[in-house]
Amino acid sequence: MANAARSDSGDNLVQALSAPARLAPESGIVEVMNYGRRSCRAVMPLWAGEGDLPTPAFIQEAAAEGLRRGETFYTWQRGIPDLRQALAGYHTRLYGKPFEPENFYITGSGMQAIQIVLAMVAQDGDEVLIPTPTWPNAAAATGVIGARAVEIPMTFGNAGWTLDFERIEQAITPKTRALFLVSPSNPTGWTATLEDLRHTLAMARKHGLWIVADETYARFWYGEGERAPSYLDVMEPEDRVLFVNTFSKNWAMTGWRMGWILAHPSLGQVIENLIQYSTSGVAQFMQRAGVAAIEHGEDFVAQQIARSRESRDIITTALGASPRVRFGAPQGAFYLFFSVDGVKDMRQLAFRLIDEGGVGLAPGTAFGAGGDNYLRICFARNPEHIRQAAASIVKVLES
Amino acid sequence: MANAARSDSGDNLVQALSAPARLAPESGIVEVMNYGRRSCRAVMPLWAGEGDLPTPAFIQEAAAEGLRRGETFYTWQRGIPDLRQALAGYHTRLYGKPFEPENFYITGSGMQAIQIVLAMVAQDGDEVLIPTPTWPNAAAATGVIGARAVEIPMTFGNAGWTLDFERIEQAITPKTRALFLVSPSNPTGWTATLEDLRHTLAMARKHGLWIVADETYARFWYGEGERAPSYLDVMEPEDRVLFVNTFSKNWAMTGWRMGWILAHPSLGQVIENLIQYSTSGVAQFMQRAGVAAIEHGEDFVAQQIARSRESRDIITTALGASPRVRFGAPQGAFYLFFSVDGVKDMRQLAFRLIDEGGVGLAPGTAFGAGGDNYLRICFARNPEHIRQAAASIVKVLES
Repeated sequence: MANAARSDSGDNLVQALSAPARLAPESGIVEVMNYGRRSCRAVMPLWAGEGDLPTPAFIQEAAAEGLRRGETFYTWQRGIPDLRQALAGYHTRLYGKPFEPENFYITGSGMQAIQIVLAMVAQDGDEVLIPTPTWPNAAAATGVIGARAVEIPMTFGNAGWTLDFERIEQAITPKTRALFLVSPSNPTGWTATLEDLRHTLAMARKHGLWIVADETYARFWYGEGERAPSYLDVMEPEDRVLFVNTFSKNWAMTGWRMGWILAHPSLGQVIENLIQYSTSGVAQFMQRAGVAAIEHGEDFVAQQIARSRESRDIITTALGASPRVRFGAPQGAFYLFFSVDGVKDMRQLAFRLIDEGGVGLAPGTAFGAGGDNYLRICFARNPEHIRQAAASIVKVLES
Repeated sequence: MANAARSDSGDNLVQALSAPARLAPESGIVEVMNYGRRSCRAVMPLWAGEGDLPTPAFIQEAAAEGLRRGETFYTWQRGIPDLRQALAGYHTRLYGKPFEPENFYITGSGMQAIQIVLAMVAQDGDEVLIPTPTWPNAAAATGVIGARAVEIPMTFGNAGWTLDFERIEQAITPKTRALFLVSPSNPTGWTATLEDLRHTLAMARKHGLWIVADETYARFWYGEGERAPSYLDVMEPEDRVLFVNTFSKNWAMTGWRMGWILAHPSLGQVIENLIQYSTSGVAQFMQRAGVAAIEHGEDFVAQQIARSRESRDIITTALGASPRVRFGAPQGAFYLFFSVDGVKDMRQLAFRLIDEGGVGLAPGTAFGAGGDNYLRICFARNPEHIRQAAASIVKVLES
């Protein structure tokens, strides 16, 4: 078995795979991460969408306590009732309208929520519209089910990034089944206005499309109020909108792989079935951590947001002072997506920033059409580190 | 959002879903479980494929220790090196040939291993051959990717259950991409002989098919040696065989949702990509529990097998004494799959066993073609409980 790694047979095996599996792309961030990991110098890892804080102890303890209680048996596919109830309360508070436990379905990561929701709305030969630059996994997951991700580049101008409604509508074909929108956006920080949401919703209604709303970064919002504008603000219950979300960012739980779907209760049996035939649920003791996060995690979330806000101000001020650097100030999420006048090969610049600056960024090429001339920096970290990283970046750019 | 649960709009939403999602079947075991849970009397739950022991404390502790170390960040998509190394050692010991870490990929359950492997070998319009009766999830997961599960009923006779090679070969069409074989079998306990494995492998080679080998119950084997015969005994490294497995049964970790794929190392990048676009990996602290299970869990596995062997003898002796009961003695796994002369409606018998016997079994209808006239009892429990359950079943049958 093992030795065959060195034989020619491997190519034959890969060629015998299904096309969607064989053609699934490697993550474009990984190449730079691997380069950085091989580097001799210490590299500040700002390439991933992850902060520098471990999960708070009270959340960890809830999982450990569940383990000690022996919560190691099969559990509800839809999620444990306590967690679904907690999510209903959380959304009722945050969105000012009533939610019930039957609106919520626990998944083994936000990514799995996306995978399940994509399977719900699209199949082989269908098309899903995805404004870009964006986190690449939704497009790749669309490809895995044999559907086609149609990238709709956003416009970058004096107003920062904007959605081009006309371009979206022109891309709709009889095969189009859904619009996948990440707001606040990873990597640009662009955040849909209520008007953007109303307009795209009207378009979806007109053409019978689903909207998949990835509101992972809803809490990381630098405008008024405690969260970004949401389709929940503008939709009717019977609209074809499915929400995907995750515990990863708000509660520093990236490694836990736990997320949720928010959907109309009539879709519950279908979601349960798709969970059953993919991972069959999330460990009960892990879900206890989710309950603790939601019920006792607001102080931590507030700290995380305050920290991101400070780091955002630091990085935008430092890079904004460099005449060659261009970006739209992020309205939400915790990334700065910037280009540098006169630099075409951002992959090479990413390598230089590792070698000369000790800072690891993600190349914009990883984020689909319109991202090629950019780099993404994640600023969900200690503001002092971001200050140092900003200084290093500016120094490399000026050298 | 919530109130719409009571409106008519739900039907419209379901009708707007993709066909493979909409048509994914509900698990056939759940109906009986729900009936049992509503029952006024205490019901011994022998319907699920799960024992009565919680995960051993030393395994739980390894996860809790990982948590305390702050292993809550993103980790390797393929699994942490320690666990892949542990699995390589485990397989090298158990199968008497060398394995390397690059043969192993950690998944968020054995079910997810199946989902990923099915996506690797089949796509929309393809066919996958599945001998039945069998655990229904593989067929359902095949449907979710738009492929067709072609059930090949096994033969039940004086020799117990047997694979019908001719029937398998006759079912092969130009669309056939794989044979999915669970051995030892859930629910029948049938276990492929080396000759069965050689024969089906030859067939797969001849027709260019993949074999998906679900060897979840390899250790629960009541013949000679420490594990059941395996495709690993008869294959060459370059054969198109993919293995799915799980921590669930051996180490009483059903609720953890952790499994693995064993594959040729040349397939590593594809598997990494499919993990990336589904759950993006398994929590690092959970994987520590997997390492502990493999490195220190052999005594526990031996106890579990001894217990299952004793319970198997009890149930086969007790039901075998009833002239109306027919079954093939399970050679592996921990289920007895039996029919009752003169009883056609096994679903009704399952309800009666709950109401009159306080015993919850799974109806054979849940396990595909050829299972209709059967009930499945899981005997992975305290032998004394199995003795009581057997007596209750016999009493109901005789009443």
